[in-house]
Amino acid sequence: MPPMKRLALALPLMLAAPAAAQEAEPPTPASIVAASRADEWVAIAPEDLLVMDLAPDAAGHSRRVVIQLMPAPFSQPWVENIRTLARARWWDGTQVYRVVDNWVAQWGAGEDGGEAGFVEHPLPEGVVSPVADYTSPMDDPIYPPLKGDLILDAPELSRLEADLHDDVYAQGTYFHDGWPLATDLGRVWPVHCYASVGVARDLAPDTGTGAELYAVIGHAPRQLDRNIAVVGRVIAGIEHLSTLPRGTAEAGVYATRAEDVPIVSVRLGSEMAPASSSEAVGGREGPPRFEYLGTNSESFARYVQVRANRSDAFYTVPAGGVDVCNVQVPIRPVTP
Amino acid sequence: MPPMKRLALALPLMLAAPAAAQEAEPPTPASIVAASRADEWVAIAPEDLLVMDLAPDAAGHSRRVVIQLMPAPFSQPWVENIRTLARARWWDGTQVYRVVDNWVAQWGAGEDGGEAGFVEHPLPEGVVSPVADYTSPMDDPIYPPLKGDLILDAPELSRLEADLHDDVYAQGTYFHDGWPLATDLGRVWPVHCYASVGVARDLAPDTGTGAELYAVIGHAPRQLDRNIAVVGRVIAGIEHLSTLPRGTAEAGVYATRAEDVPIVSVRLGSEMAPASSSEAVGGREGPPRFEYLGTNSESFARYVQVRANRSDAFYTVPAGGVDVCNVQVPIRPVTP
Repeated sequence: MPPMKRLALALPLMLAAPAAAQEAEPPTPASIVAASRADEWVAIAPEDLLVMDLAPDAAGHSRRVVIQLMPAPFSQPWVENIRTLARARWWDGTQVYRVVDNWVAQWGAGEDGGEAGFVEHPLPEGVVSPVADYTSPMDDPIYPPLKGDLILDAPELSRLEADLHDDVYAQGTYFHDGWPLATDLGRVWPVHCYASVGVARDLAPDTGTGAELYAVIGHAPRQLDRNIAVVGRVIAGIEHLSTLPRGTAEAGVYATRAEDVPIVSVRLGSEMAPASSSEAVGGREGPPRFEYLGTNSESFARYVQVRANRSDAFYTVPAGGVDVCNVQVPIRPVTP
Repeated sequence: MPPMKRLALALPLMLAAPAAAQEAEPPTPASIVAASRADEWVAIAPEDLLVMDLAPDAAGHSRRVVIQLMPAPFSQPWVENIRTLARARWWDGTQVYRVVDNWVAQWGAGEDGGEAGFVEHPLPEGVVSPVADYTSPMDDPIYPPLKGDLILDAPELSRLEADLHDDVYAQGTYFHDGWPLATDLGRVWPVHCYASVGVARDLAPDTGTGAELYAVIGHAPRQLDRNIAVVGRVIAGIEHLSTLPRGTAEAGVYATRAEDVPIVSVRLGSEMAPASSSEAVGGREGPPRFEYLGTNSESFARYVQVRANRSDAFYTVPAGGVDVCNVQVPIRPVTP
């Protein structure tokens, strides 16, 4: 909801138009999502979910962050490392150790110990830094043509093409299999948006394993595209990272280890026991389940179009465009 | 600093090149700012600073947010309202009452009371909603030509023109008098970026006084441009807003008044007593002082260029462009 005044925000029913008028109301992104068909949504596989539980906050509230891992063909060597690290319980007992405003929250642990007081923490066997390959060829049969999922026959959606091609950082941007991508010079790559998760590395490009990860908590840092592996995105609980205190030491690292935020556990969704209401197992809630609005669906195309051209009551001047990171693919929990 | 691994972040000296090699290092945004001349910086006038002190946090730490108000000719009726409201102490005792992740933190109070439990809080005399005029004509003698301050003779900076004109939301973007602006169809307007401050309003465009304000705490919501008055930007203490708990009631409003974050005082810099080391006045620190890197300076032009084309050691693929909200005009405190 736009920045409306307090009374209007708190009393939304006051603003609702009579039923007859509502039918003629221009669509909003929310109304398009609400009107989408069930078969336009795509379930996220349990092995593509990474569930990170931070220690409860000072008030004792639980803090669960759910990450959707990047599907093939992008960043797969790192994604496989991440699955191996989760299965090895490698992150359990590590920390969120760096938070920089309008930039990133970063977690994991150094593979090396010593002077800075970090605990030695050897990587599981087989987890090595992959060759730095942050883009893929556009002509791979896996990839869609340039405009990908957004090629539609509906004439009224033709504005989309222009909307998504006016990108500062690439020849064009589009969505495929639920993810925002950019393309240029015959290559295609996943982009850094708010809540994107990437692999921290050292100066040399081949130095990131996935053991240290970051989530974007500010304006899209698109300059990192093609320079670092995007391995997923936070789809629930980003606020447990974005509200953390900002670090005050060099580069926004927490100045003392007491400030670090403990990570209790990181599990793949596929590792978590299924839900059960049996008393014998304590009424387990099971792994979280999510679905995204298919980016080749008509509802998604309309959603992007409305994002680019708001015509509901609050907006008097439609933008006439939208940048790829201001679209935000709709993702929602699946309730059993 | 990019998302580098923990050890590299914490031990930056290990990464420093020998002195001889450093001279040949490609510039970074930080190195350009560090090398700028003192006469390239512009002091921000005390009457353009709005100093908002929130109640101390749970650990007793002070929380000061400093806002730079928008200069003429943009949004001036609202900016004048804001000065009047500050002088009337109108915000003292009001609250931050809404925080939405990747969107806004919002404060002030409704002008009306009643059902939602808000306190009646009449506006000072003379504070009325201005006519909604969110853009200005491009041909006003006050405004620079299209590319504004970024027209430079240095041939090596010519790439800038393309960088800043590939904007999704407007014909082009540029910087003038320290502010990011957009232009299209003969009009010019200030844009919504991370930390921008705007005037909350109701559905009708002429319904915002400036008594309720918001700060952007996520990806630039450029769709709000031309639909709402941008009146300033947070230049210090944005973390005191961006780390606040997210609201859980309708539209991200805090569900209970106990969750609201009290605003102790809001003052113009020009209202604050000058610094004094005299014991009689308690060693006042005086109003905060800030300066920005002039957007018509050579250092700023180089800073934008490097933002668009990172070539320092971490980056292997320069972006070849930068969006206006990913530039961030350098602003720093002035130490007496």
